Amino acid sequence: MTIKQNLIAAARVASVTAFLCAMSIGMAAAYDGIVKKQAFEMPSYTTVGGKTIKKVRIGYETYGTLNAAKDNVIMIYHPHTATSHAAGKYKPEDKAPGYWDSIIGAGKAIDTDRFFVISSDILSNVNTKDPNVITTGPASINPNTGKPYAMSFPIVAMHDIVNVQKALLESLGIKKLYAAMGASYGSAQALEWAAGYPDMVERLIAVVPTPGFSAFTIAMESAWTAPIMLDPNWKGGNYYGGPEPVAGMTAALNLLWMICVTPDFLENQGGNKWADPNKNPLDSWDNQFAIDTTISKISAGRAKLYDANSFIYLVRGAQSWKIGGKLTIEEGLAQIKAKVLVLVSKEDYILPTKLALKMADTLKAQGKKVEVEMLDESAKAGHLDCIFSIHKSGETIKRFLAN
Amino acid sequence: MTIKQNLIAAARVASVTAFLCAMSIGMAAAYDGIVKKQAFEMPSYTTVGGKTIKKVRIGYETYGTLNAAKDNVIMIYHPHTATSHAAGKYKPEDKAPGYWDSIIGAGKAIDTDRFFVISSDILSNVNTKDPNVITTGPASINPNTGKPYAMSFPIVAMHDIVNVQKALLESLGIKKLYAAMGASYGSAQALEWAAGYPDMVERLIAVVPTPGFSAFTIAMESAWTAPIMLDPNWKGGNYYGGPEPVAGMTAALNLLWMICVTPDFLENQGGNKWADPNKNPLDSWDNQFAIDTTISKISAGRAKLYDANSFIYLVRGAQSWKIGGKLTIEEGLAQIKAKVLVLVSKEDYILPTKLALKMADTLKAQGKKVEVEMLDESAKAGHLDCIFSIHKSGETIKRFLAN
Repeated sequence: MTIKQNLIAAARVASVTAFLCAMSIGMAAAYDGIVKKQAFEMPSYTTVGGKTIKKVRIGYETYGTLNAAKDNVIMIYHPHTATSHAAGKYKPEDKAPGYWDSIIGAGKAIDTDRFFVISSDILSNVNTKDPNVITTGPASINPNTGKPYAMSFPIVAMHDIVNVQKALLESLGIKKLYAAMGASYGSAQALEWAAGYPDMVERLIAVVPTPGFSAFTIAMESAWTAPIMLDPNWKGGNYYGGPEPVAGMTAALNLLWMICVTPDFLENQGGNKWADPNKNPLDSWDNQFAIDTTISKISAGRAKLYDANSFIYLVRGAQSWKIGGKLTIEEGLAQIKAKVLVLVSKEDYILPTKLALKMADTLKAQGKKVEVEMLDESAKAGHLDCIFSIHKSGETIKRFLAN
Repeated sequence: MTIKQNLIAAARVASVTAFLCAMSIGMAAAYDGIVKKQAFEMPSYTTVGGKTIKKVRIGYETYGTLNAAKDNVIMIYHPHTATSHAAGKYKPEDKAPGYWDSIIGAGKAIDTDRFFVISSDILSNVNTKDPNVITTGPASINPNTGKPYAMSFPIVAMHDIVNVQKALLESLGIKKLYAAMGASYGSAQALEWAAGYPDMVERLIAVVPTPGFSAFTIAMESAWTAPIMLDPNWKGGNYYGGPEPVAGMTAALNLLWMICVTPDFLENQGGNKWADPNKNPLDSWDNQFAIDTTISKISAGRAKLYDANSFIYLVRGAQSWKIGGKLTIEEGLAQIKAKVLVLVSKEDYILPTKLALKMADTLKAQGKKVEVEMLDESAKAGHLDCIFSIHKSGETIKRFLAN
């Protein structure tokens, strides 16, 4: 859609007042697939742990048009290693659009002709070297010292991530979310929104979700961070300006990636084949298996772009998360008022499927309106079905959002 | 049972000739729970990869009495981090008996009043600091240099492990195995025995088995070794005589252990509780989660006793394994002549349950006599049900071995 087409469409679906109001605040140009990264800044923010961070900045992007009543807002929360870039392209020549472009856009499941979609980079986002990412975390300069915080940055709780997002919404005059939606780490933010600010969240779409980390997930994520901390370049987190712990970060991502898909998915990536059919791994330590080189290639490329400390911070934030600030998951979930759609992968290892289903059952038992759908499993992507298969739940999402 | 009681029992069940014969070769003293570690040595061994290792030594222990016909032999193969110590105690004051003591002994599932059970330390056993372990691997002294081999030790294939065990049996005049039995890494040895020397193996008991590593297991075991190699003390494997990569080895075992049990098992070890109820992990990096400290405590204790290089060698040997030296698992399994008992954990992550069941189906389709039993799952120990629950399959094992 061109801007003109969108303007006509906006005029058609919206009241004249709303249309003129949208015009007046400069947001009449409905979403046409090109997005602009914007920055939100707070002079200071005090964490739930009581530590104050000066000059907090996060990036965000929006798709669609905020209506006059400001009641058409859907907030999207990103997974652990992702960014705010959920849909569209920053430039027409970008290789790929945002991770959920298949469901966000004009006429899509999350219809930007109707909704104003907002997605922010979270505190301690790992993609500190991505010019399109704006975040505040351990890689940021501590205004008190003029040096990167490193591991002295306050540990960020899930509720802190949410609170900074809330301040962003307030800066835009938004008081309610038509829907809060996120996958994986994003589901945690969405759930924390719904439990922490129940009167602000009308609908909740939790994708491959968890309402809190189980012992397995805590231990697995600690296993992700272990190789980073063992990397001689990590130096207790004080690597800024020198060589970074890329090898440790690569090892972390290898493990993350393999546990976020399924064994069948990995089997389809080369099974037990040698990386080079002429180089038997029994003959030399240099000779590798295809699956290891495939995974490592992906991980090594991404590891160079990530800030290892930020990765560790996000792990700790998730491990520590107590939904709604309550002692038990049941108490936390009890605070939610939103109606809920839960999209689950049939074979999820990192956030076990049965715990997501248990969460749905708890919410139902508490009298909430809850729908559950299994994501299409043909991609065999397990937890990553949240990316690979989300479009196949497009109609369900559309129907859930219809009223 | 005392030695005298065992002698009487042996006389009662065995022919007088066999009894006297056993007496004459000094093995009449039936198994009474006290075992003696013995050593087997080969002047040299040439690996399937064509590398010659001089002076190969492995340890072994036996329970029960070898009969005159030498046709009552059951060989037990140990898991990755275990030793030959499958049953009994070296000294009465030992804290615990061998890992399968619940099923090996006089009157037990593997009845040492009838069978001569033999179990060996494998090549490159990780427990190099255990005085009861005798092995040859990267921590051994290279006779050519007078220094430890480290990573210059030849990479050991599963078939090499089996070949050295075969030489041990030959030294005892044993030409046939009444049964070959092992769990996990031990199942691989048992299967390699049955596929590699099909005329020597009459019965095969494969516990939480795999006939070859899937992509998932290859990648997961590479993830085990990654933190070792990142540990600054590893030094490319040249750590002997200096500080060892204990932190990396601990991280490896943390991951190994958590993936060898089930999420439910871990949940029962403290869930998402803090290690210290007064020390919130959001407040300091020093504050930990109960599950992490529980796992790390176990791992750190064992890591000190293990040789990290040997651990890496065993990983590579398993990853590289092609059963029976064949290109496909089906071809390898086709060589097996033994009747087969497969004991499977219902929820096995590291060697996925469904692949073990697929193996059983393949063997059946090839016309083999195959029994499958699910291990009792009440311990929720997943892969480690092979230790926790094996005794509950005792009757099945006894019946399988009866004829």
